[in-house]
Amino acid sequence: MDKALVDHINRFINLSFEEEEILAGLLKTTTYKKKAFLHEAGDICRSNYFVVKGCLRLYFIDIKGAEQTTQFAIENWWISDLTSFLMQKPSEFYIQAAEATDVIVLEHRHYDELFEKLPKLEKYFRLIFQKLHQASQIRIKYLYSQTAEERYVNFNKLFPEFVQRVPQYMLASYLGFTPEFLSKIRAKK
Amino acid sequence: MDKALVDHINRFINLSFEEEEILAGLLKTTTYKKKAFLHEAGDICRSNYFVVKGCLRLYFIDIKGAEQTTQFAIENWWISDLTSFLMQKPSEFYIQAAEATDVIVLEHRHYDELFEKLPKLEKYFRLIFQKLHQASQIRIKYLYSQTAEERYVNFNKLFPEFVQRVPQYMLASYLGFTPEFLSKIRAKK
Repeated sequence: MDKALVDHINRFINLSFEEEEILAGLLKTTTYKKKAFLHEAGDICRSNYFVVKGCLRLYFIDIKGAEQTTQFAIENWWISDLTSFLMQKPSEFYIQAAEATDVIVLEHRHYDELFEKLPKLEKYFRLIFQKLHQASQIRIKYLYSQTAEERYVNFNKLFPEFVQRVPQYMLASYLGFTPEFLSKIRAKK
Repeated sequence: MDKALVDHINRFINLSFEEEEILAGLLKTTTYKKKAFLHEAGDICRSNYFVVKGCLRLYFIDIKGAEQTTQFAIENWWISDLTSFLMQKPSEFYIQAAEATDVIVLEHRHYDELFEKLPKLEKYFRLIFQKLHQASQIRIKYLYSQTAEERYVNFNKLFPEFVQRVPQYMLASYLGFTPEFLSKIRAKK
């Protein structure tokens, strides 16, 4: 298994060599080409994904047929449709590689087992979900409070490298406007 | 300390009598009148709140001066401005009692201590934050995908009792529209 996840975990807790071995036995590593689907709407989301290298996005198709990106995950972030993953019911989301992406895959069938065999990981995932909830609170506030242009300017300020990385139509849908509108804002700068 | 939190925790893990005693020593119980503030924007959010009875809301004031409610917490839910709470930096949110509310208060100065003394609680809070992140994913999807009227109809279907409980202007701001618009939708039914 790629060292990236173990390194990330060991920032927060300390796994012994034996624990690292047990962990490796419960996970697998895969690579997806740019634009490949890890999961599609209608299917049950079987896995939670840790990004080693690259970028994934979570999106759904709205009633007008437009893609709405609700989340990105780059290096050291986890991503999944959590409701579908936890309850093993069909999902309304897609998970797609926004770039060629290396992931570590935690399948649902190993999820409970992971915590039984490695109770130390409760702390790690408490901190991960705490961070994800924190990010969601900030995100929801932005969705309520800012105009599309403010969202873009703010996002650019906070994550300049990320803005360069992802296809513009994905970024536009994440920020809640059309690609045409994004071109217009960029032209103004 | 009120039994409600221990009962809630014991749904997920098992605390011994000694552990319950340690927990009680790290928490306090308070009651807030309807409309009282637990926390105000500009201040550092010092606590994470567990609702024993009643209802709290998290909101901010947008650039137009309107209150935007981004989260509610009823019985057995935790609520805080997590970024302000974790990083101990000034908050942009208010936490207010939407009803007379009994809460259990976990102060930041006891937060790390809680996990050091009661490592079992890592699992409990992993599950709490997992649930909160799950709720946020659903909420963000709604904010993108539905018209104001659809949001109201859907919310009413999912949480009919809750709709009866909270003041209508708070509900309107949570669903992202004006109280006048809410009156109009209700009149149509």
